[in-house]
Amino acid sequence: MEKVKEGDHVLLYDGRKRKFLVKAEYGRQLHTDKGIIELGELVNRIYGTKIKTHLGKEFYILKPNFEDLVYGLFERKTQVLYPKDIGYMIVKAAISNGSRVVEAGTGSGVLTAFLARAVAPDGKVYSYEVREEYIELAKRNLARVGLSESVVLKNKDVTKGIEEVEIDAVFLDMPNPWEVIPSAFHSLKHGGVFLAFVPTVNQMEKTAIRLREEGFHFVECVELMLRNYRVSVIEGVRPSTLGIRHTGYIISARKP
Amino acid sequence: MEKVKEGDHVLLYDGRKRKFLVKAEYGRQLHTDKGIIELGELVNRIYGTKIKTHLGKEFYILKPNFEDLVYGLFERKTQVLYPKDIGYMIVKAAISNGSRVVEAGTGSGVLTAFLARAVAPDGKVYSYEVREEYIELAKRNLARVGLSESVVLKNKDVTKGIEEVEIDAVFLDMPNPWEVIPSAFHSLKHGGVFLAFVPTVNQMEKTAIRLREEGFHFVECVELMLRNYRVSVIEGVRPSTLGIRHTGYIISARKP
Amino acid sequence: MEKVKEGDHVLLYDGRKRKFLVKAEYGRQLHTDKGIIELGELVNRIYGTKIKTHLGKEFYILKPNFEDLVYGLFERKTQVLYPKDIGYMIVKAAISNGSRVVEAGTGSGVLTAFLARAVAPDGKVYSYEVREEYIELAKRNLARVGLSESVVLKNKDVTKGIEEVEIDAVFLDMPNPWEVIPSAFHSLKHGGVFLAFVPTVNQMEKTAIRLREEGFHFVECVELMLRNYRVSVIEGVRPSTLGIRHTGYIISARKP
Amino acid sequence: MEKVKEGDHVLLYDGRKRKFLVKAEYGRQLHTDKGIIELGELVNRIYGTKIKTHLGKEFYILKPNFEDLVYGLFERKTQVLYPKDIGYMIVKAAISNGSRVVEAGTGSGVLTAFLARAVAPDGKVYSYEVREEYIELAKRNLARVGLSESVVLKNKDVTKGIEEVEIDAVFLDMPNPWEVIPSAFHSLKHGGVFLAFVPTVNQMEKTAIRLREEGFHFVECVELMLRNYRVSVIEGVRPSTLGIRHTGYIISARKP
Repeated sequence: MEKVKEGDHVLLYDGRKRKFLVKAEYGRQLHTDKGIIELGELVNRIYGTKIKTHLGKEFYILKPNFEDLVYGLFERKTQVLYPKDIGYMIVKAAISNGSRVVEAGTGSGVLTAFLARAVAPDGKVYSYEVREEYIELAKRNLARVGLSESVVLKNKDVTKGIEEVEIDAVFLDMPNPWEVIPSAFHSLKHGGVFLAFVPTVNQMEKTAIRLREEGFHFVECVELMLRNYRVSVIEGVRPSTLGIRHTGYIISARKP
Repeated sequence: MEKVKEGDHVLLYDGRKRKFLVKAEYGRQLHTDKGIIELGELVNRIYGTKIKTHLGKEFYILKPNFEDLVYGLFERKTQVLYPKDIGYMIVKAAISNGSRVVEAGTGSGVLTAFLARAVAPDGKVYSYEVREEYIELAKRNLARVGLSESVVLKNKDVTKGIEEVEIDAVFLDMPNPWEVIPSAFHSLKHGGVFLAFVPTVNQMEKTAIRLREEGFHFVECVELMLRNYRVSVIEGVRPSTLGIRHTGYIISARKP
Repeated sequence: MEKVKEGDHVLLYDGRKRKFLVKAEYGRQLHTDKGIIELGELVNRIYGTKIKTHLGKEFYILKPNFEDLVYGLFERKTQVLYPKDIGYMIVKAAISNGSRVVEAGTGSGVLTAFLARAVAPDGKVYSYEVREEYIELAKRNLARVGLSESVVLKNKDVTKGIEEVEIDAVFLDMPNPWEVIPSAFHSLKHGGVFLAFVPTVNQMEKTAIRLREEGFHFVECVELMLRNYRVSVIEGVRPSTLGIRHTGYIISARKP
Repeated sequence: MEKVKEGDHVLLYDGRKRKFLVKAEYGRQLHTDKGIIELGELVNRIYGTKIKTHLGKEFYILKPNFEDLVYGLFERKTQVLYPKDIGYMIVKAAISNGSRVVEAGTGSGVLTAFLARAVAPDGKVYSYEVREEYIELAKRNLARVGLSESVVLKNKDVTKGIEEVEIDAVFLDMPNPWEVIPSAFHSLKHGGVFLAFVPTVNQMEKTAIRLREEGFHFVECVELMLRNYRVSVIEGVRPSTLGIRHTGYIISARKP
């Protein structure tokens, strides 16, 4: 029977479509189309119970999980990666607790956070980002989920070289991953995995060809299409009308 | 400059399509359509170098990673899950080092191994399997990748109840996941994640409807379609002729 | 050098994204975000040339084709079928000039128009529609594209029976196609094709199972996913962000 | 109650998976894994009835439709187009009885046959093919389905120019469709439709960019993914394990 503590991040959910990630703080309010909730009133409530708006509408008081926090709490100034691509990349990279990985660019830090969590507590993420503002942004975001310890943010241009060696995996979410291939080759340990995520076919083509030229093995180009289904007792099952959105292509390869 | 030790699992790769996961053992041979390799000769070779068959064809001597070992080394008597679905499920489950998860059925132990690796060293996987032969199979497989410590194999029928409580996530890869929903509800902690993987639309429908009936939140039904691309300097880029294979549907939900 | 005649339907196109299907009529205007065009001024212009708005912005004067007219001119009060599904259904039905086909329900008449065009001038479409208002709507729509002669609109409930016999194909775009299967069997000639279009998996399942029960052969269930690509000299090729929308499932079968 | 005549093409079907397109001829046999059928015995049988093999297994005697004949009867020496792409292209081309279309290359004549059928009896297909052997092949194939009258086979290199003018649509199924764009522009009438089918992204990109450079409007690049579903009373509904195969990309555009 865990209770909400002051300062906790809480997920408010109407049981249907609306969810809000809020902070349990006195003096703050959440304004929804179903009414106003005093956020201070969340303190000492039991997770799983409900709270009413001033209009009497109920919202569940839920504990957010890591995915909620990263996508709900992080300030985002860049396009971010989503679970379908992140999950696949982490499995392909074969990383786990203790792995040492290089990432570029840091951006808002969403991928950074998932990588840090995958290699924590013993591993480390070295994250390169050329724009200083994003370094600051990612620093704030990572602190919000308690992962600052597992990440070394580096305000450097990764195309100028990777400083770490004997790295387990390199993750590139940047427009020109092919420019990092020679230094990734140098930085990775034998069997280490190269991963890049790019939105266009042309970037995928350029990266894959360059990887083979530079001697990487097992160059694979894939795309993951996520389809949502609506299941209803009355209407049955059909794909969601939202459709299958394009995110990007994933290129993976291994250093021989 | 790491060397192959006797008993090491080694990945032999012709640089194109063929790869073989072998053990560096004296007195054993690998027969390929490119000739025979004496596996004892692998001992003391340096990873990344090449070895020749008796016909003079070369194979790279590579160090297998976790994915290679699980899919190459595990004896399989059941349909197994693949990286695209496993990666997504692990991200959705929001598990990491220290998490305690329940799984059923164990089958060949492929998902078990990925879960164990995700929660190691401090977490634990409680894996239910009703058929004793699969318990033995999974035990051998998990030992091969050094993950026995992180898994508790239970030769029990999960539809009869889950014994653990305050669980972070439940993973079901079995024909009738809906029968486990009430006990999953009981076993999960607040905010804990339910995940099921099923091959047919009807199973997805039944599971999703039952989850809502039992009070689960955020019921999501998705399908991940993996498309491979062939990239060639001469022929350009096109989807692989293999096509997009169906594996199954993933249903996720959260305990309120 | 064909000229626009008074009363012609004309497609106005800005060369980028905007297109408007208008009628060349004196005294009418088209208001766009690029300015106003006097539609009377279109008369006697040459197709392929440009016309200016009162703000000086140019629009091409184009001749609409059948697809433009059906999707641009038809009043629509129902969900309509799209080219990807219509084209496939017509090929599977193996219909052509002279074929006699039954359709239900008529709805706005979009599929009716494509079918009529496929079987004209010698064939005929018998189109059943239970709601009288749609019969009137379809009548007006078909007249707009000059296809009234090829269609017999029938304000009858097709589940009560099909009056025509020795029919080449039956097309069903309605919620309960399985109720029409026995009478479709009776109405079709040997080798005649049954086609149904439904939005949910459950409707597809019910229809397919019933078709086999009633003795139909070659029961096939398919789905066509249309993906749009953006091609740009600067940005390269990527799937459109619109995504792959779900329309429905197509069930086909043949009478033995 | 139509009877099989000597020389008729007949579809033999075991009611499950196997189907054979045969000719009702005396002195010929069909050998199947379910036994031998004397093809002469088909003569005078009634369509829809069954015939037994010498092992007593039954096959339905069915009348093939146009799709069966084209895919079953045509000798094929080239990759051919399939219904999903053909149907879409014909709808986008907005052709019908009386249309005049240009096609290249003829290949085995599969697309030619569908185009001929769409424009018959009053229209015409002008089909260019540079390799003389394919001209002969297509001639034989088209004769088999009675469409010789609607097609003018031209043993010429379409990249050297199109001789016809005021054409309704141009269909290109060849490796380098962009080389035909200027002459297609010249040959098409105002509003006429350009269509190309290519297997790689690079060909699609090159074609789309060139089309815009040459002044074509409404350049659209799409891909149709066909998914087959298995429906079973016992096992429910799931996508076929065959998967979604790649065929190619369709580029369409209109002459202003």
